[in-house]
Amino acid sequence: MHLSPQPYRQGRFQSLQTDQIKCEKLDPFSLVADELAVLSDRLRAMVCAEVPKLASAAEYFFKLGVEGKRFRPMVLLLMASSLSAVVGNFNSEEQRRRQQRIAEITEMIHVASLLHDDVLDHADTRRGIGSLNSIMGNKLAVLAGDFLLARASVALASLQNTEVVQLLSEVLEHLVTGEIMQWTTESDQSCSMDYYLQKTYYKTASLMANSCKAVALLAGHTAEVANLAYDYGCHLGIAYQLIDDVLDFTGSKASLGKPSLSDLKQGIATAPVLYALEEHPAMQHLISRKFKTSGDVELALKYVRESSGIERTHDLAREHADRAASAIAAFPPCPSEKAHLCREALTELTHQVVTRSK
Amino acid sequence: MHLSPQPYRQGRFQSLQTDQIKCEKLDPFSLVADELAVLSDRLRAMVCAEVPKLASAAEYFFKLGVEGKRFRPMVLLLMASSLSAVVGNFNSEEQRRRQQRIAEITEMIHVASLLHDDVLDHADTRRGIGSLNSIMGNKLAVLAGDFLLARASVALASLQNTEVVQLLSEVLEHLVTGEIMQWTTESDQSCSMDYYLQKTYYKTASLMANSCKAVALLAGHTAEVANLAYDYGCHLGIAYQLIDDVLDFTGSKASLGKPSLSDLKQGIATAPVLYALEEHPAMQHLISRKFKTSGDVELALKYVRESSGIERTHDLAREHADRAASAIAAFPPCPSEKAHLCREALTELTHQVVTRSK
Repeated sequence: MHLSPQPYRQGRFQSLQTDQIKCEKLDPFSLVADELAVLSDRLRAMVCAEVPKLASAAEYFFKLGVEGKRFRPMVLLLMASSLSAVVGNFNSEEQRRRQQRIAEITEMIHVASLLHDDVLDHADTRRGIGSLNSIMGNKLAVLAGDFLLARASVALASLQNTEVVQLLSEVLEHLVTGEIMQWTTESDQSCSMDYYLQKTYYKTASLMANSCKAVALLAGHTAEVANLAYDYGCHLGIAYQLIDDVLDFTGSKASLGKPSLSDLKQGIATAPVLYALEEHPAMQHLISRKFKTSGDVELALKYVRESSGIERTHDLAREHADRAASAIAAFPPCPSEKAHLCREALTELTHQVVTRSK
Repeated sequence: MHLSPQPYRQGRFQSLQTDQIKCEKLDPFSLVADELAVLSDRLRAMVCAEVPKLASAAEYFFKLGVEGKRFRPMVLLLMASSLSAVVGNFNSEEQRRRQQRIAEITEMIHVASLLHDDVLDHADTRRGIGSLNSIMGNKLAVLAGDFLLARASVALASLQNTEVVQLLSEVLEHLVTGEIMQWTTESDQSCSMDYYLQKTYYKTASLMANSCKAVALLAGHTAEVANLAYDYGCHLGIAYQLIDDVLDFTGSKASLGKPSLSDLKQGIATAPVLYALEEHPAMQHLISRKFKTSGDVELALKYVRESSGIERTHDLAREHADRAASAIAAFPPCPSEKAHLCREALTELTHQVVTRSK
């Protein structure tokens, strides 16, 4: 099944004629909701391999209700629609299918990294329900992650596009590198904003950036356009993570504003802490000992609140979101009304990412 | 650095003239020893990534002395030399380099699977030294395995050959599938020789088979020749595993003939047990309860020894080894003396694999 744009496209086409309707909030998710539902079904089917036990384990992360935000596939499908197909080896339907495969592969890689991270972090909850490793043991979490990575590799190879294969192989390496950076941070590195942003690129932004680029390349676009797609994914990913870091201090809607401080509790100094450090040099000791001494977490929270750390992190996120929006604005002239609408949606996402409270 | 055949090639050329020298034992390892040393160096260098802590962890498996038998790379380099280069897009030196990359990628995938298997098996020794996970924790073993898989993916993608990428992606899936089959065996499956052999293909033979095929494809050979290379790797791999299973009962040279029975202790019924079952149906209960009741392991050993299980497993291994040798015999006419010698070495390996005692 493919994108069925009728419900919103026609309405939207009219709305563009009148300022009144144009002010209506654009919901990026709704533009690709049907296609995302199909993608979710495909992912669930894909993990139902020959071995039922693992299928149930891997499916755990894809089942209805706990499937997360499907944020990455949504962005990728919107990106696909934003860039009209350039004439190439594939007809436009086949091209769309190949771009959908990228969205699926990206989600598989993302979920695999969550599964392995859970083993690494000894996490016992994820997405509000018990993490797979706490329920089924590390064993199954490692296997299920490996299984998804292997499936992603097979799906990727079947696209038979060497450049795209290279892009997403590098993402795998970045994810591991980022995890290692987080896990092996030396004392001086843990106080460095550059180190922090580099790690954030590897752990979060690279997957988004390179999969956006892959979607553009599969549509036959030039390196220049593909790099704009990359820029969008990269800056959106960094903005997203920075706001995640803020929400860990301010609390999300779900937590009714109560900060979870999970980063501090894991010994990780994120952007708000690193900015606060500039105003409160005493924080260096806390960071160096990874907030492990009793009272450290509370003290760090106090310092952060007394500083402009939260505000400056927000500003930095907004800067990255703006750069993401600029990349979309620099796309070649809009080929269709649908593409125009999807570009608007991608731009809208750059606002939503920064203003979200969950 | 490339294969430097002079030391043995000339001597060997002479030896082929005289029966006396022809009887001399051919040492397959020595034919590619120099190239294997370079390959080991490259692997060690490759894992020295930006992050020293992981490099030391991944390097753990590649360091001198504990680097295992490098059996797979040896087979692949011999296979490369056995098949003369067909004219293609690359000169013969570049072709050899690409085949060496396959040998490296194969070893990285193999070591990554060992690392993750160690986490799965809670193993505390591997290759005679403490397993990485018992020393550094599951965390680092998972990460180091992921790191090697990611590096293997990047190296594979850089070969820019879609068929080869597909072959080795499928191997990744097979490795996981095999591990899952082992880990989730149902009671009736655990008594099935077919199930056992299928699992052995996935866990052991697929990597060997498909990497041999990749080496042939990279040299520009036809599907027919590539499939013979596949057959060689597949049957050699199965023979290798069957003898491993035998040695678990008879003891290796290193263990001075004392059986380690590690498969039984892990609850796994291998070929000798499955053959013994045909003569001693009472074993079914032991297999079903995974030899977990006190005395089960000893009783199973007694049954196996009183049966023809060991002998029949040996026979089966020999059959597979013979089929591997037949694949080499079916290669197209020999293009050079060096290729001839390497084919002899591959054939010799089919004997060594079956007669080895460690």
